[in-house]
Amino acid sequence: MTDQATADLWSGERTETARRLLLAGVESFARRGYHATTTRDIATAAGMSPAALYIHFPSKAALLAEISRTGHRATLDLVERAEASAPGPVDQMRQLVEDFTVWHARGHTVGRIVNHELYALPEDAFAEVAGLRIRIEDTVRRIIEHGVAVGDFDVLDARTAARAVTSLGIDVARWYTDRSTETPEELGRRYGVLVLRMLGGPAA
Amino acid sequence: MTDQATADLWSGERTETARRLLLAGVESFARRGYHATTTRDIATAAGMSPAALYIHFPSKAALLAEISRTGHRATLDLVERAEASAPGPVDQMRQLVEDFTVWHARGHTVGRIVNHELYALPEDAFAEVAGLRIRIEDTVRRIIEHGVAVGDFDVLDARTAARAVTSLGIDVARWYTDRSTETPEELGRRYGVLVLRMLGGPAA
Repeated sequence: MTDQATADLWSGERTETARRLLLAGVESFARRGYHATTTRDIATAAGMSPAALYIHFPSKAALLAEISRTGHRATLDLVERAEASAPGPVDQMRQLVEDFTVWHARGHTVGRIVNHELYALPEDAFAEVAGLRIRIEDTVRRIIEHGVAVGDFDVLDARTAARAVTSLGIDVARWYTDRSTETPEELGRRYGVLVLRMLGGPAA
Repeated sequence: MTDQATADLWSGERTETARRLLLAGVESFARRGYHATTTRDIATAAGMSPAALYIHFPSKAALLAEISRTGHRATLDLVERAEASAPGPVDQMRQLVEDFTVWHARGHTVGRIVNHELYALPEDAFAEVAGLRIRIEDTVRRIIEHGVAVGDFDVLDARTAARAVTSLGIDVARWYTDRSTETPEELGRRYGVLVLRMLGGPAA
């Protein structure tokens, strides 16, 4: 079953047919992995013929590329909005961790694909996605460095700390399921508290 | 390339032929995913015929099951040794995070497979591995609860905190590569400091 966050990713932006194919791609890649999925599997899951798929996407790789780009752009957007949401690094970081966690819990299906199938991307899509990932991590590091500069945080190495913050959130997509006992929002709040402490910030 | 930690997993325990097949399985699953790998791919990577593979493993699933069981048993062993390594929860946790991080950084190839291909396991292997995973997480939670009881740690929810500690370590296998700038040991020490803080423990 596609989670709601995944289903919303292309709402309004694409034709209904392309959207159905993208969601069928997400489902199929999540179930069997990218390499074992054929364009026929995806077309069938979308209730179409393989020929109809090729009208919208030239290849299976092009479908993966669009899924990955869209997922990464949405993540970068979320992270930049968190940075803009408050003047101080503590509130920025709390917001960032809460939203990042909720996003990876709600969108765990697409989250697994965009994070575990990176090396299956065609070269140009890989380069673009790698650039988006650097901007995500740079935003997290910038907030940490800002916090250290004003005395709100205290870390030995901002790069490792930024990596830990993003890693903790990304891995939510691996283990979170619709049967998990915590809601995405509860988990986000708890992770926000844990991360602020990890950074030497004030307890929430 | 198989990392050293993976290569060491079956040293001495299995015949040379079975070991070659297990390592070829790890390599092949890591490269293309479990579902897209055939027993012929694995046999070829090991320099054997498919018929020779079947002498040692009845199926591709049996190979994955042995890889997953061995990886999880080694992880549980490491976690239990960390708990036994010191009387106090702070030192136990520092040791646990350092060893757990080093293990997932060094053994990132096998770490990815055992953590990302869980749902491909045959039913009996899945049940066994799920049991090992619960024992790993229970050990982490027991150390945290012990620390809270004696006033060394301070967390709102030991279960979420234990999940965060294991998640942070497991995700190292996803992002760590042989080109990473930190050594596994450096990363382990830094993560040890971050986790102790996250648990409300003393700064290292």
